[in-house]
Amino acid sequence: MLKTLKKFVLGPPLASADLHHQKLTKKVALAVFSSDALSSVAYATEEILLVLVTAGMTAVQLSLPIAIAIGILLIIVVSSYSETIHAYPSGGGAYIVAKENLGTYPGLVAAASLLTDYILTVSVSIASGIAAVTSAFPNLYPYRVVICLFCILVITLANLRGLKESGAIFAVPTYLFVFSFSALIIIGFYRYFFGDPVAIQEVTHYPPASHALTYFLILRAFSSGCAALTGVEAISNGVPAFKAPESRNANITLVSMGLILLAMFLGITELARFFHVLPVGDETVVSQIARHVFGTGPFYYVIQAATAMILILAANTSYADFPRLASLLAKDGYMPRQLASLGDRLAFSNGILLLGVASGVLIVMFGANTHHLIPLYAVGVFTSFSLSQSGMVVHWVKLKGKGWFHKVIINGLGATATFVTLLVIASTKFTHGAWMVIVFIPLVILWFVAVHAHYRDIVDQLHPNLNDLLPPKLHRVLIPISAFHKGTAKAISYALSMSSDVRAVYIALDPERAARMPEIWSNWCIDIPLVILESPYRSIIRPLLDYIDELQKEEKDQLITVVLPEFVAAKWWQQILHNQTALMIRGILMFKRGVSVTSVRHFLDY
Amino acid sequence: MLKTLKKFVLGPPLASADLHHQKLTKKVALAVFSSDALSSVAYATEEILLVLVTAGMTAVQLSLPIAIAIGILLIIVVSSYSETIHAYPSGGGAYIVAKENLGTYPGLVAAASLLTDYILTVSVSIASGIAAVTSAFPNLYPYRVVICLFCILVITLANLRGLKESGAIFAVPTYLFVFSFSALIIIGFYRYFFGDPVAIQEVTHYPPASHALTYFLILRAFSSGCAALTGVEAISNGVPAFKAPESRNANITLVSMGLILLAMFLGITELARFFHVLPVGDETVVSQIARHVFGTGPFYYVIQAATAMILILAANTSYADFPRLASLLAKDGYMPRQLASLGDRLAFSNGILLLGVASGVLIVMFGANTHHLIPLYAVGVFTSFSLSQSGMVVHWVKLKGKGWFHKVIINGLGATATFVTLLVIASTKFTHGAWMVIVFIPLVILWFVAVHAHYRDIVDQLHPNLNDLLPPKLHRVLIPISAFHKGTAKAISYALSMSSDVRAVYIALDPERAARMPEIWSNWCIDIPLVILESPYRSIIRPLLDYIDELQKEEKDQLITVVLPEFVAAKWWQQILHNQTALMIRGILMFKRGVSVTSVRHFLDY
Repeated sequence: MLKTLKKFVLGPPLASADLHHQKLTKKVALAVFSSDALSSVAYATEEILLVLVTAGMTAVQLSLPIAIAIGILLIIVVSSYSETIHAYPSGGGAYIVAKENLGTYPGLVAAASLLTDYILTVSVSIASGIAAVTSAFPNLYPYRVVICLFCILVITLANLRGLKESGAIFAVPTYLFVFSFSALIIIGFYRYFFGDPVAIQEVTHYPPASHALTYFLILRAFSSGCAALTGVEAISNGVPAFKAPESRNANITLVSMGLILLAMFLGITELARFFHVLPVGDETVVSQIARHVFGTGPFYYVIQAATAMILILAANTSYADFPRLASLLAKDGYMPRQLASLGDRLAFSNGILLLGVASGVLIVMFGANTHHLIPLYAVGVFTSFSLSQSGMVVHWVKLKGKGWFHKVIINGLGATATFVTLLVIASTKFTHGAWMVIVFIPLVILWFVAVHAHYRDIVDQLHPNLNDLLPPKLHRVLIPISAFHKGTAKAISYALSMSSDVRAVYIALDPERAARMPEIWSNWCIDIPLVILESPYRSIIRPLLDYIDELQKEEKDQLITVVLPEFVAAKWWQQILHNQTALMIRGILMFKRGVSVTSVRHFLDY
Repeated sequence: MLKTLKKFVLGPPLASADLHHQKLTKKVALAVFSSDALSSVAYATEEILLVLVTAGMTAVQLSLPIAIAIGILLIIVVSSYSETIHAYPSGGGAYIVAKENLGTYPGLVAAASLLTDYILTVSVSIASGIAAVTSAFPNLYPYRVVICLFCILVITLANLRGLKESGAIFAVPTYLFVFSFSALIIIGFYRYFFGDPVAIQEVTHYPPASHALTYFLILRAFSSGCAALTGVEAISNGVPAFKAPESRNANITLVSMGLILLAMFLGITELARFFHVLPVGDETVVSQIARHVFGTGPFYYVIQAATAMILILAANTSYADFPRLASLLAKDGYMPRQLASLGDRLAFSNGILLLGVASGVLIVMFGANTHHLIPLYAVGVFTSFSLSQSGMVVHWVKLKGKGWFHKVIINGLGATATFVTLLVIASTKFTHGAWMVIVFIPLVILWFVAVHAHYRDIVDQLHPNLNDLLPPKLHRVLIPISAFHKGTAKAISYALSMSSDVRAVYIALDPERAARMPEIWSNWCIDIPLVILESPYRSIIRPLLDYIDELQKEEKDQLITVVLPEFVAAKWWQQILHNQTALMIRGILMFKRGVSVTSVRHFLDY
């Protein structure tokens, strides 16, 4: 039953042999890997304004220069990463680049920041995607958390189905977003210059300034806007997923993505300035612009739908990258091994599930509020940026290949720019939530180190020697029973088939019945001894454990097997009526040395 | 570690021999069993006004006559139950009375209604307790659901500690409530007649009437007010928990409770009328009255605190009764047996946990909103009332003891009055949520019947016969392995100690390693065959299941044991890094006939 459901939701399993077929064309790859970067257009501008507006109307005019500064940063980052793509055709994630060129620990720092960043990408994108929906349909606002969780569920399932299908699923919305926003910007500019520029927000309506326009404030606005750069690295991590020639295709995709992002981000920021749009609680800035340019008609709803879809799907960038990075870390022994195994559909199922759960928790913790989530966001991103760029610098210096100096300049510039930005973000956003990430990342690194140490330790702990193969001197079998029935009988016959030293154990919860047990035993002339244990505190476990201790004292080199008679009910709800005791006994004996537990099951017919 | 925690939270286990010591004095019993009934004073009046106010200011004046009608109903119910107490010193819950006198099915109906009612008592009481808190501290309002869940947790733990302690815990708040409310009423009346009667709500401020003042509306107001009677039956169910002479003490407690309840309910209703208090969204009626009488000073906060405490503790009535009833049903085979077993602290732990979870779910479902929960409330209560009263009538008619006719009259009156009320509630509240209960109760009864049938069925299914004891012709052992290490070695030696037909099974997820396995095997000169299974879809389970099927075809009368090598890590977090595969295999083989699973554990030292 469950299996057919799984098959229906996830599709039939794919053979390992099909793996190499799961490759992406440039167009599909742009959709899969760029939705994160592009979708940030939907909130980056608003985050800048949110800071500036606290310093009054003149401050708001600074949104354009700030956006331009961010645009320049974007160009630097993109050109650095296009170098990376050529140097690492096998996928130059910050983790690999930093590890290979700067050493293990920088690599782990990069990995930890990336994992954090991927989880946040899912939460932030989905939260603001739903914000776009609730801007159009305010009456859905109270249900936003549930809606977000539902979206996460859907994307998780889509990705468990495997990369290729998800590419197909996500191409349409991404392109709808790009085209509808281009239309919005073009028509917006046209209306501004040739149409009637009716400002949404009359200058007189500006809220009073609560802060002075300090440099610190401007830097904070800049930091907020840097959310626009998140996800730019996705492509360089995903090079192997491209159709051959991988590097070339990846590079073309990266550059085109950079240009589209630049154009849309500057365009929206400028439109907001033209029409004096300010952030308000219940409606996004983009939604206000769209209402103004198109009016609340079909076009407006197309914009909101496209925004919602690409944002929700931006999360998918992380679903492509998080599991891949997790599997790399697992292969290197820094994460649990099961993260390295491909699922039925050739996707890293465990990583996908982990990501889904983690981001869902964040959504609930922050009540799906974008403005609370975004400050946590950029720290991880820029940490990995600057680490991978510095890694590239070292790479070129070591390699000294053709035109290496020019490359060192590019990546050096990238490293410096992103590192400075990182410091700015960490300092200006620290009290706004960035501190959580600054605490969290080291913890993740500790976890990596601990896991690695453990995997190293077990290797020598588990090195076998021949006398591990010698059978124990004594093998005793105990059968806890509550009565004599078919289940008990089967357990007894099973026990006798594995050892000659078998004892039934009755825990006397109920003294009257305890008194009757020996008689039953003799009536059925069962040829194994019956041990009756007192239990003044009505505990089933205690007396059993004490008895096992006694037996173990008698002989060091012995094995004790506890055989539990269990039932498998004919109907699922009947299962509730059985086996709790067996379950409990098994759970507790789990941690007792020298004891094994076997459940002999009797299947009920009705 | 867990055990010490449990001991700390729940206290050391109590011996079965101590059971009879866990008895209650009248004073403590009043606190334990009456908090539910008394606390309803905090919301009953408000529920009446909530209905009447929709019909305008004249309608509101009807609150007093309606309250008086409810008061009369209360007197009838109390006197009926005092008869029950004498007839059933062993605890005359509606279930027992109805079952003995009316037959099994009426008994089950009563039981189902009571269980529903107990769960609702917890949810309603805690929800409105927190409403009292948020009336005093409005800024806590957004967190009400979490606060409610926390309270449920605390009460659940308190009750897992055992009845006597909980009595001690709950006596103080109950009496604080009674005394502070008496003070409120007395001072309120004094201020009204001799002080300056500044009405909170000027008549002119009455909201416009949205409904006509129909009889139906009046009856609905009456139904809402009937919430005041919930919990009156608690004492008659709890007779055995009283100090001897049980019946006499229980009866005295019942009557005094009835009188206190009557006085407080009428008093509060009248004060509300005096001061023209109307229900408003964010503050309870009682809170408004208290502010008016005392001003927002220390006395006001005492009232709110007392209200909150008794309401939160009213839930405790259900924690005393729900598990007891559940255990009765379990003993009769209508509920899972584990509900009948006493926990470490002589409380019915499983029933307590079940109640905690169920009421928590309701709180979340209804967002801790009292006005949505209360309409579900009264149906169950009055169903059980009228069933137990009718049961008593039959009882007396059968018995024909001294003064039986007089008793028949009393209980007959009780039965009729409560039954009529039930019909009124069911009809006037149907669309307001009562329908859910009317659907839920039959489902519970179906469950009772199904469980009972299942327990009857297994008796004959499990009747053993001697050839169940015969050992199987063949006992094969399979050891799924991923490599050869200490764990594998131990598993092999274990397997050899139970059977001569042992095979290691390697599932070839990774072809290279598969190729190397036979060599490893010969190097270690292991004397059991190694079976290598292909797995094109990277599934570990499929190939194993198929192989087991093959083996089972060879010989019908055989037993297959799968021995799983597992690790027990030295630190809890390391456990995450192991055994997932073993866990999965065990889970799936759980449902395969003729297969037993044993895990042989190797303990890691660091």
